[in-house]
Amino acid sequence: MPTPTRTSPDNANVGETSQTPLPPPPGYGVTGILRRWRHEDMLKRGSLGLRALGFMLSVLAFIIMASNQHGRGRNFQEYEEYRYALAIAILSTLYTGLQSWRQIHEMSTGKEITSGRNLALIDFFGDQLMAYLLLSAASSAVPMTNRMREGADNIFTDSSAACISMEFFAFFILALSAMLSGYKLVKHTYI
Amino acid sequence: MPTPTRTSPDNANVGETSQTPLPPPPGYGVTGILRRWRHEDMLKRGSLGLRALGFMLSVLAFIIMASNQHGRGRNFQEYEEYRYALAIAILSTLYTGLQSWRQIHEMSTGKEITSGRNLALIDFFGDQLMAYLLLSAASSAVPMTNRMREGADNIFTDSSAACISMEFFAFFILALSAMLSGYKLVKHTYI
Repeated sequence: MPTPTRTSPDNANVGETSQTPLPPPPGYGVTGILRRWRHEDMLKRGSLGLRALGFMLSVLAFIIMASNQHGRGRNFQEYEEYRYALAIAILSTLYTGLQSWRQIHEMSTGKEITSGRNLALIDFFGDQLMAYLLLSAASSAVPMTNRMREGADNIFTDSSAACISMEFFAFFILALSAMLSGYKLVKHTYI
Repeated sequence: MPTPTRTSPDNANVGETSQTPLPPPPGYGVTGILRRWRHEDMLKRGSLGLRALGFMLSVLAFIIMASNQHGRGRNFQEYEEYRYALAIAILSTLYTGLQSWRQIHEMSTGKEITSGRNLALIDFFGDQLMAYLLLSAASSAVPMTNRMREGADNIFTDSSAACISMEFFAFFILALSAMLSGYKLVKHTYI
């Protein structure tokens, strides 16, 4: 008696009475791999776009606050909340600038500078921390600006308000970026 | 010729020449299910503990700020940052209180009030939003308190500082809770 093989249709299911063929789980096979690649590519582009936008906003906040010197009582150095806002704008400029540079570098050369798990951790905690710092700086500068604008609107209060707005926008952008990074961190099973 | 069945050891592998038995993926089988149950139980307890702690801190912040009235120029109502801090303390008390109540209710009765995916979304966005609001309120109240304490330390400035500290602690707790909720949201494949 010949041993039955896969090619004979009559005997193919002989030993598989209890094994119904399951559909392949998503994420496997050629289409699955292609879909995952496209998904990861979209995530990367989205994260780069958000960080580049955050970088522009941070640079604007930095320039506006650093040039906010208009004589006695109208210098940002005299108020601790504006000094704080400037410090965080500088930090955020550095962080988002470095991250954008790294991502563009990796995209153009195809080489990765850090390994997957560490990078995902740095991404998530960096974004989340920067978002918290930006929100804190913007919030702390609001009451003083508000109080000054009750008296008079001048170039000093307007510049402060502009810097605060830029930091709020940068906060929204980085909060979104932190959610993307957190998704990547958990979904790609680095933890 | 009798049809071969699973019980005969000679014919069991007849049709399975190309199917080597793979080890079961983690998370399946009895040990996997038990481990997942224990993992989910730990997550639930951790999330309940964090929210209960956040509730206590929010109540403290609320009571301290609401009773911070010590005569003219020393009432919290006269300063917008303190009114904001009080408003957010009330919101946080309500949010963490309701969430803790719901979780305790579900644990004791075993019934779920809302379905899995909506709940996970509400959990994550609620926690994250509350964390941002608490940080914003605490940050905004810091500069005025700092400026007042340069002049004199009295019961008004001390109470304000205490409320701010409670809100910062509550922020840390809710930021942790938001990370837990985000992990649950992504890991349990609701999205």
